[in-house]
Amino acid sequence: MDAAVLLGGPKEEWPADLKDRLKRAREAGDLLIGVDRGALFLLELGFKPDLAIGDFDSLKPDELAWVEGTADDIRYSVPKKDWTDSELMLGIAFGDYQIDQLRVYGATGGRLDHAAINAFGILNPELRKYANQLTLVDKQNLIFYRQAGSYELKRQDYTYFGVTCLMPVEDLTIQEALYDLAPYSGDYIRSFTSNEFLPEKDSCKLSLKKGLVAVVYSKDLDRYQQA
Amino acid sequence: MDAAVLLGGPKEEWPADLKDRLKRAREAGDLLIGVDRGALFLLELGFKPDLAIGDFDSLKPDELAWVEGTADDIRYSVPKKDWTDSELMLGIAFGDYQIDQLRVYGATGGRLDHAAINAFGILNPELRKYANQLTLVDKQNLIFYRQAGSYELKRQDYTYFGVTCLMPVEDLTIQEALYDLAPYSGDYIRSFTSNEFLPEKDSCKLSLKKGLVAVVYSKDLDRYQQA
Repeated sequence: MDAAVLLGGPKEEWPADLKDRLKRAREAGDLLIGVDRGALFLLELGFKPDLAIGDFDSLKPDELAWVEGTADDIRYSVPKKDWTDSELMLGIAFGDYQIDQLRVYGATGGRLDHAAINAFGILNPELRKYANQLTLVDKQNLIFYRQAGSYELKRQDYTYFGVTCLMPVEDLTIQEALYDLAPYSGDYIRSFTSNEFLPEKDSCKLSLKKGLVAVVYSKDLDRYQQA
Repeated sequence: MDAAVLLGGPKEEWPADLKDRLKRAREAGDLLIGVDRGALFLLELGFKPDLAIGDFDSLKPDELAWVEGTADDIRYSVPKKDWTDSELMLGIAFGDYQIDQLRVYGATGGRLDHAAINAFGILNPELRKYANQLTLVDKQNLIFYRQAGSYELKRQDYTYFGVTCLMPVEDLTIQEALYDLAPYSGDYIRSFTSNEFLPEKDSCKLSLKKGLVAVVYSKDLDRYQQA
């Protein structure tokens, strides 16, 4: 089973078609998960959360009552804990619910201490094994993670892509893209950005022998084209 | 000499008082640097760039002519290069101009492959020595970097702070904050988030024996309070 998750990040960063995406997820039988204010956002969008996770300390009593009265499964986290709500969500989704592919919305923008944990929580040694199953989506980016292996990266609806080494990597290569990368090994966070798919190809190739990378697909919004 | 830098990130993420900040920087004799579209943004805000850096490939001919006709120093980067424009800027500012404190605007939001290189470019082994001199500022976050050492973190105008390990750390500690951190050592990107200053204190203490961390100060915008 797959799942769609809504975190509490600012609505301005949501994909424009978030409601349609959630509708399609529900119709496909995916689990809908709301974390903290994200659980309220789900309800406001017309979706009952199958699972709500958080300390919910930013919700007013009537908002919390709404979440508690509708969600099928509620997991309360405690402040001053070792795991953040975002990590807790990953642990419950992949561990308890055995989710295959987890698609996360509301992870970016706003408070960057939150965005950091949303982007890097998967590096927690207890969660890292699920890295290939996690995708973050916002209005102009799609982020996924790849451990050692060989992959085909499909273009989808994005113009650019970048690869960021989040753990020491060995023999990271990019082939059949605008900028190919010869086998690169390195031990610090390094981003290979602003790469593009070739016009005549719908995909390129990524491989690494060791390590973990984030792949960021991105596109320009209309902002600059209109200017 | 200090410097203020404007990168090409979306205006929606700028601090609300960016123009005042740049005005004060100019009055203080700080260097004003524009990178790519950020050079044009500086001009649109009424500030002549002392230094403009980039390939400027997103500018129209008349926009580029405006930058070229006003900036005192222009450094052209070439596509398909080893260093991104953001890294090139750090190298020129700290290397050529011997900047003491560099304050960067326009680094966040928009394309996250850009945001990643803006946040992590300082980890480039040739630039890492300048990490303590770099600060990124957007509308609700302030990010700075700290190498091995003992530091006092001043509250400033923010509610929360988080610390993210960007390189393997030894004995990272946080003291005199809401959530103290006992000496932590670890070798992966880990974020200690949603910490707060104590009400009775204007600062807390951070130390690490080895490694490099990003400190993220953040605050809630009015969005949720009004909701």
